[in-house]
Amino acid sequence: MARRRQIYEGKAKIIFEGPEPGTVVQYFKDDATAGNGAKSGVITGKGVLNNRISEYLMQRLGEMGIPTHFIRSLNMREQLVREVEIIPLEVVVRNVVAGSLSKRFGLPEGERLPRTLVEYYYKNDELNDPLISEEHIATFGWAHPQELEEIQSLALRVNDFLCGLFTGVGITLVDFKLEFGRLWQGDEMRIVLADEISPDNCRLWDSRTQEKMDKDRFRRDMGGVGEAYQEVARRLGILPEHGQGENVAAEGV
Amino acid sequence: MARRRQIYEGKAKIIFEGPEPGTVVQYFKDDATAGNGAKSGVITGKGVLNNRISEYLMQRLGEMGIPTHFIRSLNMREQLVREVEIIPLEVVVRNVVAGSLSKRFGLPEGERLPRTLVEYYYKNDELNDPLISEEHIATFGWAHPQELEEIQSLALRVNDFLCGLFTGVGITLVDFKLEFGRLWQGDEMRIVLADEISPDNCRLWDSRTQEKMDKDRFRRDMGGVGEAYQEVARRLGILPEHGQGENVAAEGV
Ligand SMILES: Nc1ncnc2c1ncn2[C@@H]1O[C@H](COP(=O)(O)OP(=O)(O)OP(=O)(O)O)[C@@H](O)[C@H]1O
Ligand SMILES: Nc1ncnc2c1ncn2[C@@H]1O[C@H](COP(=O)(O)OP(=O)(O)OP(=O)(O)O)[C@@H](O)[C@H]1O
Ligand SMILES: [Mg+2]
Ligand SMILES: [Mg+2]
Repeated sequence: MARRRQIYEGKAKIIFEGPEPGTVVQYFKDDATAGNGAKSGVITGKGVLNNRISEYLMQRLGEMGIPTHFIRSLNMREQLVREVEIIPLEVVVRNVVAGSLSKRFGLPEGERLPRTLVEYYYKNDELNDPLISEEHIATFGWAHPQELEEIQSLALRVNDFLCGLFTGVGITLVDFKLEFGRLWQGDEMRIVLADEISPDNCRLWDSRTQEKMDKDRFRRDMGGVGEAYQEVARRLGILPEHGQGENVAAEGV
Repeated sequence: MARRRQIYEGKAKIIFEGPEPGTVVQYFKDDATAGNGAKSGVITGKGVLNNRISEYLMQRLGEMGIPTHFIRSLNMREQLVREVEIIPLEVVVRNVVAGSLSKRFGLPEGERLPRTLVEYYYKNDELNDPLISEEHIATFGWAHPQELEEIQSLALRVNDFLCGLFTGVGITLVDFKLEFGRLWQGDEMRIVLADEISPDNCRLWDSRTQEKMDKDRFRRDMGGVGEAYQEVARRLGILPEHGQGENVAAEGV
């Protein structure tokens, strides 16, 4: 196999040139970081699970008419996606108080918000992804107001659908982070959902026990991180039956 | 117990005066009709299941910030709801071709629509609930254009959430009918979701086998109607474990 050109290596994924123009390959690593790299480690099998979970969620969202970058799965750790111009925003949607929102406003974790809150962070590791307002976005031209309106309405639709989906499998979707990109098709530009949706960037709590089933287990050294990700996939019905209990990392990549 | 005043007896429910002003009680019957009463029968236990399913769905939608008439469950067949001024529209949301849409346009049942379709029918049994356009609604004043806009956006949000929820439990939400009402609170008027959401007014297909799990089993004399409704409740996780396989009608109302 010809060596593919690596475009970017991030903390959780490597982006390779795709087989066709306008496409890239997302390779999902087992590497995990928290606090913008302050803490790092490996969660064996995470890449395989996140690749599968993100594929499944992007496909279901696509069926709902939400445009995404997803094209097709390539193998256990890679998916082919449309190359987009990433909008430098981390779009955080929150249903329940947790994490930085709890700290910033002194609110108790676990309290349901009076309404869904959409927050924007400037996607810039050197600046530590600072919280921004719509004013900053317009002033610095990170997105046009019409683009931001589209982003917000897509983010709320994604939230409605994912809240339903996770409720159906006994999980509370506390909050999550999305990234969007510009997809040019000739002269036409469309905003599409990009990056990934996985327990790396969602807070998922078991609806009955409130147990954490996401990267907070890693951030807070709680252990059972891989098992939690696997349980999310199992509940979504996308873990092959015979794979249950198996080490998902034993796929020989 | 004092005899309550009956306000209305419909085909599937009886509406009683509620215990507090501005409230009514919905009593769910086992009666089933199809083709606007052309066919009628009894589905033993249906009322209990629809009461529970509708309660569950209205509660989950309420948590998502979608205003509903639901207040609380009273017993196995009754729920307390806010009395509203019903807007005389049957709001039908469709994801997949089925039923009258298939007949009207000669489309094959089971085909996914290119996008979610919202249809309005004039709620009038004598006229057989005719299909109408937004123009008819404005011309005859059944809803103000701003009200209709709110109704459409709520209907689409309900669809996003319910599609997710049913996907999570292995069910395809093909289509469903909603009713909305005006709720007056002092001088303020809000549009809220009213009536019921149950297998009586949703088309629900098993995602794997495409088997029907809704009132079409009754309409088309397929048998297993009560069992199908029960399976919907079971998948939603709202059928008590010990109730599985039991005759849900044995509740002694
Ligand atoms: N469809 C796409 N086209 C181009 N770039 C994409 C696409 N989807 C995601 N990306 C980008 O690819 C990178 C994925 O790598 P990874 O998630 O590991 O980054 P990271 O270390 O988290 O850094 P970042 O803070 O930039 O996300 C991200 O920069 C993301 O914005
Ligand atoms: N919150 C509410 N306040 C007042 N009326 C309500 C409320 N929710 C539902 N209704 C009305 O109560 C009735 C419920 O009865 P049922 O569903 O059996 O009627 P139906 O025989 O189907 O007739 P219809 O065609 O009017 O629905 C409906 O007319 C419905 O519009
Ligand atoms: Mg990233
Ligand atoms: Mg009715």
